[in-house]
Amino acid sequence: MTLRSPWGGDKNAALLTDHYELTMLQAYVRQGFVREAVFSLFVRRLPKNRNFLVACGLEDVLHYLESLRFDQDALEHLAGRDEFSAEFVEWLESFRFTGDVYALPEGTPFFPQEPVLEIVAPLPEAQFVETFVMNQIHLQTVLCTKAARVVRAATGRAVVDFGLRRMHGTEAGLKGARAFYIAGVAATSNVLAGRVYGIPVTGTMGHSYIQAHEEELTAFREFTRLYPTTILPVDTYDTLEGVRNVIRLADELGDEFKVSAIRLDSGDLKELAFASRAMLDEAGLERVQIFASGGLDEYEIVPLVEADAPIIGFGVGTAMGVSADAPALDIAYKLVSYDGRGRAKLSPDKEAIPGRKQVFRVEVDGSAIRDVVGRAEEFGAGRSLLRKVMERGVRTRHGRVDLATARQTARDEISRLRERLHSLETVDPPYSVWFSEQLDTERSSVVSWLKRR
Amino acid sequence: MTLRSPWGGDKNAALLTDHYELTMLQAYVRQGFVREAVFSLFVRRLPKNRNFLVACGLEDVLHYLESLRFDQDALEHLAGRDEFSAEFVEWLESFRFTGDVYALPEGTPFFPQEPVLEIVAPLPEAQFVETFVMNQIHLQTVLCTKAARVVRAATGRAVVDFGLRRMHGTEAGLKGARAFYIAGVAATSNVLAGRVYGIPVTGTMGHSYIQAHEEELTAFREFTRLYPTTILPVDTYDTLEGVRNVIRLADELGDEFKVSAIRLDSGDLKELAFASRAMLDEAGLERVQIFASGGLDEYEIVPLVEADAPIIGFGVGTAMGVSADAPALDIAYKLVSYDGRGRAKLSPDKEAIPGRKQVFRVEVDGSAIRDVVGRAEEFGAGRSLLRKVMERGVRTRHGRVDLATARQTARDEISRLRERLHSLETVDPPYSVWFSEQLDTERSSVVSWLKRR
Repeated sequence: MTLRSPWGGDKNAALLTDHYELTMLQAYVRQGFVREAVFSLFVRRLPKNRNFLVACGLEDVLHYLESLRFDQDALEHLAGRDEFSAEFVEWLESFRFTGDVYALPEGTPFFPQEPVLEIVAPLPEAQFVETFVMNQIHLQTVLCTKAARVVRAATGRAVVDFGLRRMHGTEAGLKGARAFYIAGVAATSNVLAGRVYGIPVTGTMGHSYIQAHEEELTAFREFTRLYPTTILPVDTYDTLEGVRNVIRLADELGDEFKVSAIRLDSGDLKELAFASRAMLDEAGLERVQIFASGGLDEYEIVPLVEADAPIIGFGVGTAMGVSADAPALDIAYKLVSYDGRGRAKLSPDKEAIPGRKQVFRVEVDGSAIRDVVGRAEEFGAGRSLLRKVMERGVRTRHGRVDLATARQTARDEISRLRERLHSLETVDPPYSVWFSEQLDTERSSVVSWLKRR
Repeated sequence: MTLRSPWGGDKNAALLTDHYELTMLQAYVRQGFVREAVFSLFVRRLPKNRNFLVACGLEDVLHYLESLRFDQDALEHLAGRDEFSAEFVEWLESFRFTGDVYALPEGTPFFPQEPVLEIVAPLPEAQFVETFVMNQIHLQTVLCTKAARVVRAATGRAVVDFGLRRMHGTEAGLKGARAFYIAGVAATSNVLAGRVYGIPVTGTMGHSYIQAHEEELTAFREFTRLYPTTILPVDTYDTLEGVRNVIRLADELGDEFKVSAIRLDSGDLKELAFASRAMLDEAGLERVQIFASGGLDEYEIVPLVEADAPIIGFGVGTAMGVSADAPALDIAYKLVSYDGRGRAKLSPDKEAIPGRKQVFRVEVDGSAIRDVVGRAEEFGAGRSLLRKVMERGVRTRHGRVDLATARQTARDEISRLRERLHSLETVDPPYSVWFSEQLDTERSSVVSWLKRR
């Protein structure tokens, strides 16, 4: 089908940027400001209720950097705007990304002030990619972080992504399904996410199917004829009457009855789960499980799990899909070095730390106790987290990571965080992030140079 | 360029749906449930801090409905899954949307329980489109509603969209720029939104440009040489020193100095605006305006406007871009009629009102005092808001609306809402939404039919 691409044709994707990236680009080129720059992408502070973030989105960033170019249509559009010269537009035609990228592997928990990625490239290239790189890492990190909380709250029960219909666009829905899977979500309802990423796809049945029939029992009978092991939603009219209809169907079908679960989607889920379980058990349907959905998030799931409600899994939609309690991060992409000299910004609350850096995670008995941000060339006290994922515009081995590996990384790395960081509220003190002595020295020297000028 | 489409190739867009839409579709087709259905899209309740919502997203919905089809790749994918029969996959090949659509014009304020759109089509078609239709109306309505608040708070000062880098994906960034424009935002930084929608594009200069130079004044000089009327950010190191550098540059350039504004992006914006204004005026630079940005939203803008801070416009990014205080709506798409008979759902707090409907807006002296939701065929007391925008799968005249018209609709319709609804917090009582006597009768009759069965 020819559905309009969200950016009006892929060929225009290089225009998916802030206007000032292009005006700065032209200025840099005119002035010959094309020496090596280092930009650092980091989060300034944790949002509400978060004690750590989970890095995600690198795959799309690397794909963008590999394929970035201005096609004819984009060039013509820019040529038609007064602020761009013909020479500049011609120069753009051969514009490519030729730099190096260092990044945290997808699935790695990280903390404020730590680089999620650093880009080393000629200034015009490193500057221009800002908007797209920020957009992708931001979206996917917000969603992966949120999902990690939901998965943790569910403590072993399956979490299924039902978010697509209320996420911020179809791109968020698709890339979100991938971010959720990295965070440990078991499956998604998003059919295309299955096609594109190979994520397990699942689903139940909508209430409208039941409503379209005169009788709920008839709808159950018809649907299970086609999908014997389906999950049946029981709350269209009256939940417990819905459960009775499932039992009636089991009586009718005998050995042919293979329905795997019922779905509770409204009302008091805890109470209804216990009541439904009792009714199903009473009817000898111990193997029919209970699945819950309807406005769920980590805060709603915790009491259900604590009460040991007989629920096998949770369908989680909107609250996870938009990361409702913390939909954005204070993420920044800042110049930290140009032509071999550290750079910084001194705006209040908006400082950036100069130079290319490394993040060292210090662990004791397999448990992370602190991170140290140091200069890239240091030998740190802990495990180095940033890896070179792209060299001269081409992915390195570390830049080619499959989804299963990212999911495993998230599982392993998150399990090394101390229990208190898994609180659903902000803990005090936060996880410790130190700066190495060498980095502190570099920072002071850059700041005093800037102030001296 | 060949940037990956957010859904992995447009040809796969029909798969951008929840799995159960496809299983239900197959069941409907098998069972011959192909008579006319009516689905209604509405919001169940207002989110936090909102007293009205602004309808947006119809254009993308109509485009989707016009072009929906399963291409070979999608069909092959589905054929490879156990739950779909070969006959069904073959049937999908000729699947098209052939129904009628009634909708609120983009830019129309609306309230809970009112249909934003209603789709009348054979059941399989009306059901299948659920996920995409919800996703698009949800996203764009969330963003358009948020932007209307920001524009109102700015009371005539320009609002510029700086959201792209921290919105939920590039699709949200692009479609959001359009939604913001409908709400009255003056321009966007998103270059592609200019290309695709013709929205005015603007921008200033990034701090990194200044950091890349040894001296702030040098950076200002170089940039204005290329862009004489640019806006200069003054807060990279020290805001008032930045203003002094602008004044130095004006002294240097004399008549050649054409800088239009400075940009404040951090610190106490009110205080800095007054101080900068005084310094500029003192230097005879009365015509250099002050533009503000940095973590702004409607709540931050109101006190600046109330203090009459000398600010000509606001760059608003993240908080508007993700609608931070209310990032999601409790939006639903429900079967309300099948084969000529009204349908409803009785789940607690999740009722749907049966039958095809109309929204009548009752106005006194140009001011909206209440809405009445009635049956579609009624003559209501007020102005009918829902229009037929698609007939048998083809847009009607009302389905072809340009962006300027939608923006005008928003301006006109929002101005008819009483002042109290523009409060940034929830007001009590809310705007009145009544149900007509005929609709109440229909609803009771459907509910009692459902309970009688």
